[in-house]
Amino acid sequence: MADKPSRGLADVIAASTALSDIDGRAGLLFYRGYDIHQLAGSATFEEIAYLLQRGHPPSAGELAAYRAEVSGGRFLGKLVTAGLADVAGSQAPMEAMRTLVSLASADDLDKNSNAPEANSRKAVRLVAQQPLFVAAYHAARGGLEVLPAIDGLGLAANFLLQLRGAPPSEREAQIFDTCLVLHADHTMNASTFAARICAATLSDMHSAVVAAIGTLKGPLHGGANEQVMRTLTEIRDTAPGDPVGAVEREVVRRLAAGEKIMGFGHRVYKTEDPRATHLRTMSAELAEASGDDTFYRMSRRMEEVVLAEKGLYPNVDFYAATVYHFLRIPADLFTPVFSVSRMAGWTAHVIEQHADNRLIRPDSEYIGERALTWIPLDQR
Amino acid sequence: MADKPSRGLADVIAASTALSDIDGRAGLLFYRGYDIHQLAGSATFEEIAYLLQRGHPPSAGELAAYRAEVSGGRFLGKLVTAGLADVAGSQAPMEAMRTLVSLASADDLDKNSNAPEANSRKAVRLVAQQPLFVAAYHAARGGLEVLPAIDGLGLAANFLLQLRGAPPSEREAQIFDTCLVLHADHTMNASTFAARICAATLSDMHSAVVAAIGTLKGPLHGGANEQVMRTLTEIRDTAPGDPVGAVEREVVRRLAAGEKIMGFGHRVYKTEDPRATHLRTMSAELAEASGDDTFYRMSRRMEEVVLAEKGLYPNVDFYAATVYHFLRIPADLFTPVFSVSRMAGWTAHVIEQHADNRLIRPDSEYIGERALTWIPLDQR
Repeated sequence: MADKPSRGLADVIAASTALSDIDGRAGLLFYRGYDIHQLAGSATFEEIAYLLQRGHPPSAGELAAYRAEVSGGRFLGKLVTAGLADVAGSQAPMEAMRTLVSLASADDLDKNSNAPEANSRKAVRLVAQQPLFVAAYHAARGGLEVLPAIDGLGLAANFLLQLRGAPPSEREAQIFDTCLVLHADHTMNASTFAARICAATLSDMHSAVVAAIGTLKGPLHGGANEQVMRTLTEIRDTAPGDPVGAVEREVVRRLAAGEKIMGFGHRVYKTEDPRATHLRTMSAELAEASGDDTFYRMSRRMEEVVLAEKGLYPNVDFYAATVYHFLRIPADLFTPVFSVSRMAGWTAHVIEQHADNRLIRPDSEYIGERALTWIPLDQR
Repeated sequence: MADKPSRGLADVIAASTALSDIDGRAGLLFYRGYDIHQLAGSATFEEIAYLLQRGHPPSAGELAAYRAEVSGGRFLGKLVTAGLADVAGSQAPMEAMRTLVSLASADDLDKNSNAPEANSRKAVRLVAQQPLFVAAYHAARGGLEVLPAIDGLGLAANFLLQLRGAPPSEREAQIFDTCLVLHADHTMNASTFAARICAATLSDMHSAVVAAIGTLKGPLHGGANEQVMRTLTEIRDTAPGDPVGAVEREVVRRLAAGEKIMGFGHRVYKTEDPRATHLRTMSAELAEASGDDTFYRMSRRMEEVVLAEKGLYPNVDFYAATVYHFLRIPADLFTPVFSVSRMAGWTAHVIEQHADNRLIRPDSEYIGERALTWIPLDQR
């Protein structure tokens, strides 16, 4: 046992999981033993959610049944419906997601049960509800009602439909579906770790997911994709005539000033994040299709400069930003979109934690004063 | 670096803190260097909340200003007020606390700021609001409005007033105040650890506290005090003529059946939990004053049997159960009451985490299958 903590638990193995695995040196990511490079573009998000939650790739029949469960689970519930307008009017998107999922537990059909079958059903419902919550929040803050989903469409297409108020093209839906696949799970990231700590007290799946959402909210975790978009927009707006040149100057300046450039570097990957590879390709495709590839070209230059100056590679958040931008998702919903996907992983981790549980309760190192004498207030 | 995780991070030092320290072998607990045995009965909860959040015992003037901040922070806010009836009507107490705190961030005067001064003000407001949320929830589920607090009273007395609808005796308020002091912080317990992981992504204090509440909800953490009371009540009701004899028989039977007896044993203490010592004494006093000491006598016998059979000592939850019972707090609010106190510690840990932050992101050990080949759905 070490006497000193490893700052931020870096390189400390905190848990066992059969859900995902990272080879940080080789830049590889696996979901239940399947290389992400095989899955991206070839598996749908529903197949991946099933794989993570239920342990094996679904057969055609299993997938059809799972899709039916997703359709059945796509409802707001009484408390969310009642609270939505107030929440949308006064909470920022990730605050709102935290609140809406917390409200939603009241209307869950398996509330108060941690039994494996109950958790399995809750897990599908949470995956079904999260995209609806994001779209309904966005509609409500614009004073609109969210459109009904279309049963024949997949989760990705329905989300874009409900968010944008019109059906996406088939290719847009495919690309967004791949984004969801790429973000679905990622070993012991901070939000997943928070979810497992919560679940390990034998608290319930909704509590664990609420903890995860609050954790993903932070700019050092999920909040980074939104920051990337804000940085690109800011730099472009200061130099609309030469945005690519401006990126180079601004990144060099920020790095010299000791500032952090969001979207680069990762605790675990020492080379390119395999998810970034796919997101870069999709960003290029969407940029070209959009007729204005400014943000893509700026991103490429930013990537080159940060690699040259700091030796850091883009992480999953970096090209996700421009992909979501080209899909016309508002920047302040990028992190909620991350939660739509990561819900598959969070729920699967809660299932895995409950299947072989032990309370997660570490020690701490005390670094304060010792052996003080308490002087009562009237003598202080 | 170990290749294998320590199950549940037992004995792993996960963080540094100057807030509290435990000597598990000697059965000692310190808040910022002050022995809990010095504090219990001699410091008020407001002094301890100040000590934890601001680093030193308050002077008389500092304490008066802090109490004024508590009074000013004791409000429900617009979203909580709007949602309270629905939440009280369909969420269990700890679900409701999770939701209400999540709603409350919308009305926090320092929302969207993690600056030290903002966090310091939020920390007081959260400490002020949590007892009000518990009392207002309890009133709302009975179709009542919560009574206004009385400015001259302390937090403990106001809570009992608002919860029970009538002012407590001075001694009741003192005893409850000591309960709050005893539960205020406890190193890297699961809920505090979840709060720090959340805060370490640079998420906000409300998100961290919401994560903590969901984690405290579990029966392996805060939920244990309620379980203790349910067990005592259950056993008494099966043998009203001989409840103490029934405890002995039932505990022996349950232990032989491999069942866990809630309220005993602790990951860190290897001897008596120093908080249990004070709670036992207060339980005895309240039992005698109540004129019916059945639950106290049953608790004593249960303690003896579990120690003899399993070598386990009572933890903080065990005698808290009967103390709260004698204070006429409903059993399903015992864990919310725990959160009223631990709010002081959670908020102080968020302040401490933000003051010297690093993302908490451990590794995991992969235990699943490897190198599988993904077969597309139509060939599966």
